[in-house]
Amino acid sequence: MEAKNVGLRNVTVADTKISNIDGENGKLIYRGYDIMDLVKNSTFEETSYLLLHNDLPSKKELEEFHKMLVNARDIPAPMIKNMENFRKDAHPMDLLQAFIAELGGYYVEHGTQKEVSYEMSINLIAKMPTMIACWDRVRREEEVVAPDPTLSHCANFLYMMSGKKPDPETEKILDTCLILHADHSFNASTFAAREVASTRAHMYSAISAAVGALSGQLHGGANYEVMKMLLDIGSIDKVEAWVKEKLANKDRVMGMGHAVYKTYDPRATILKELSEKLAAKTGDPWFAITQKVEEVTIDEMKRLKGMDIYPNVDLYSASLYYMLKIPMDLNTPIFAISRVSGWASHVIEEAFAEAAPKPALYRPNADYVGKYCGPEGCAYKPIEIREDE
Amino acid sequence: MEAKNVGLRNVTVADTKISNIDGENGKLIYRGYDIMDLVKNSTFEETSYLLLHNDLPSKKELEEFHKMLVNARDIPAPMIKNMENFRKDAHPMDLLQAFIAELGGYYVEHGTQKEVSYEMSINLIAKMPTMIACWDRVRREEEVVAPDPTLSHCANFLYMMSGKKPDPETEKILDTCLILHADHSFNASTFAAREVASTRAHMYSAISAAVGALSGQLHGGANYEVMKMLLDIGSIDKVEAWVKEKLANKDRVMGMGHAVYKTYDPRATILKELSEKLAAKTGDPWFAITQKVEEVTIDEMKRLKGMDIYPNVDLYSASLYYMLKIPMDLNTPIFAISRVSGWASHVIEEAFAEAAPKPALYRPNADYVGKYCGPEGCAYKPIEIREDE
Repeated sequence: MEAKNVGLRNVTVADTKISNIDGENGKLIYRGYDIMDLVKNSTFEETSYLLLHNDLPSKKELEEFHKMLVNARDIPAPMIKNMENFRKDAHPMDLLQAFIAELGGYYVEHGTQKEVSYEMSINLIAKMPTMIACWDRVRREEEVVAPDPTLSHCANFLYMMSGKKPDPETEKILDTCLILHADHSFNASTFAAREVASTRAHMYSAISAAVGALSGQLHGGANYEVMKMLLDIGSIDKVEAWVKEKLANKDRVMGMGHAVYKTYDPRATILKELSEKLAAKTGDPWFAITQKVEEVTIDEMKRLKGMDIYPNVDLYSASLYYMLKIPMDLNTPIFAISRVSGWASHVIEEAFAEAAPKPALYRPNADYVGKYCGPEGCAYKPIEIREDE
Repeated sequence: MEAKNVGLRNVTVADTKISNIDGENGKLIYRGYDIMDLVKNSTFEETSYLLLHNDLPSKKELEEFHKMLVNARDIPAPMIKNMENFRKDAHPMDLLQAFIAELGGYYVEHGTQKEVSYEMSINLIAKMPTMIACWDRVRREEEVVAPDPTLSHCANFLYMMSGKKPDPETEKILDTCLILHADHSFNASTFAAREVASTRAHMYSAISAAVGALSGQLHGGANYEVMKMLLDIGSIDKVEAWVKEKLANKDRVMGMGHAVYKTYDPRATILKELSEKLAAKTGDPWFAITQKVEEVTIDEMKRLKGMDIYPNVDLYSASLYYMLKIPMDLNTPIFAISRVSGWASHVIEEAFAEAAPKPALYRPNADYVGKYCGPEGCAYKPIEIREDE
């Protein structure tokens, strides 16, 4: 029996030009650019262009990219009809996974396979916010709001959700969140997208699968779990006892710890600042409670296990979205709305990589440890002589 | 830079009790039972039970399992309405991926997570044939045919497709195909399902992703490509020149060769026999053409590369389905209708494995080989001074 590579930790599967995590120094690089710099200077639209095209756009390229996104925002009217038939308490991630796969039922793209992949990427980046905003209104039995072509990608999403144009500060906060979540190397959902694309399945197929992987609570679903935790704790004076009990029971504190970062997650640094700023404006207690969760968890993990632990991307995004009045089950869909630009870039890299090593269909091995009855297998027993258990 | 595990070939990621491929001796084992024995003695329903429950059922258990499947065959009426809105030439695999994810929009399951997973498995095995049969009739603008509770799983699928009850021989042929395709260890779609399930996403999410992976032409999509090839060749006298030209151009002959089998794929052995029998009955030329493709490819690969090559599961299934009058773009969906029993078993194993090593979220590494401008990243250039390319 061979050595087991559980979870593929530390197994290197490919070369990538898309992003680099420097876990030792707490740095995240997209296509050569430090996210700290992108957050200061760029927008989500520009960052998406960078991820998809390997370079920052010229003014003209960015205008064209923006125009393509604006033109692709609408979703098919029958898709909205279809939403109306779903149960109102269905999880938005389930529907997002379905809506994305459904796109193949409405659209047909033309051109080379690579051109089709880029066109599908534009469709996905543009339409996923519309899908989520529509679903949120349909389930609340409110009229859906058509996209506004005069608004930026991020402002338009907030507008389609609430029916009101956001103020520039709110727009900037969410846009920063979208930049921060856009890519993170070979995480589980990105790897799922690449796995599906490795069979030569198309972009919608791969991204729908990635949404599925992101929905899991060990992955993107964690930002929902964080908010559930904060609501469960309820007030700052209860944090210490709550966290101590959790850790004493060997449970995890959601939003704390990361498989790759050995220091502060740079995304958490920015999200923490934004959250503090927003709480000062709204008067919400959620920033203070979150910060206390961070402190107590760090101290307790040090005391109990001598271990250093840091917040990950989910800890401060949860309360941030909550203070932006976004329904908490949309936390993970918003993660998806951003990460799609990274997923799409990875699918293109997987399918059209020019340099060696060429990607190949992912097909690992497993050790069979099941029933063994000799090389011929177990003898088949006719049903008449099998016994009930 | 670390050694690259391209395609994860020969990387062992887990223990499994579900199936074992003995590539050297051309054997495939499901839960201890040789598929040759299952094909002779079992049915697809019984084999599905075996895969899901790790043992052959008693008479009573099989009756209950059959009853559960029969009761779960219907799909929601609004889903059929939704189908009517799709473009008629959409690929059935795209729709299958969407329909499966949509199930989360209609159903809500109760019980422990493990009970929910089993209930979802029953729903998937029972409803996927209905989804495909309905879509096939909707796109042809024919009335959909409701499931017939008096028919077996396989006979009912053929009945919902054609509106006619199949003869026992046809039923037996397709049922055998379903047994043969039901599991194949950690192939690309199964691995995609496990990858998604490793984040703790639910069964529908994982199986929808697996359908996406199966749709790729390097994986399940190959049985469609084989039929395209056979139609392109057209007649037996053209096989030799066609195959020789293909191989001279360094192209692959679809349906030939497998990453794991170093000898004849046992599934191909059975499918070849069935295909020969069916062709004798129908008078179709497709078996003879396929057999000739096999012969010429084996000889040419030996001559050109000194390599032994054998048919895989797709070579003889393609013409078999064609002779059963199944539209050729349903070849891959039929693969899915069968493989779902394996996928579901793998998702349950991934999520609820009791023995060590415990599965963990799949998160491999990649080597960053992109732009590098020092530890701070490239300097951000304001858009005003960027140049058009």
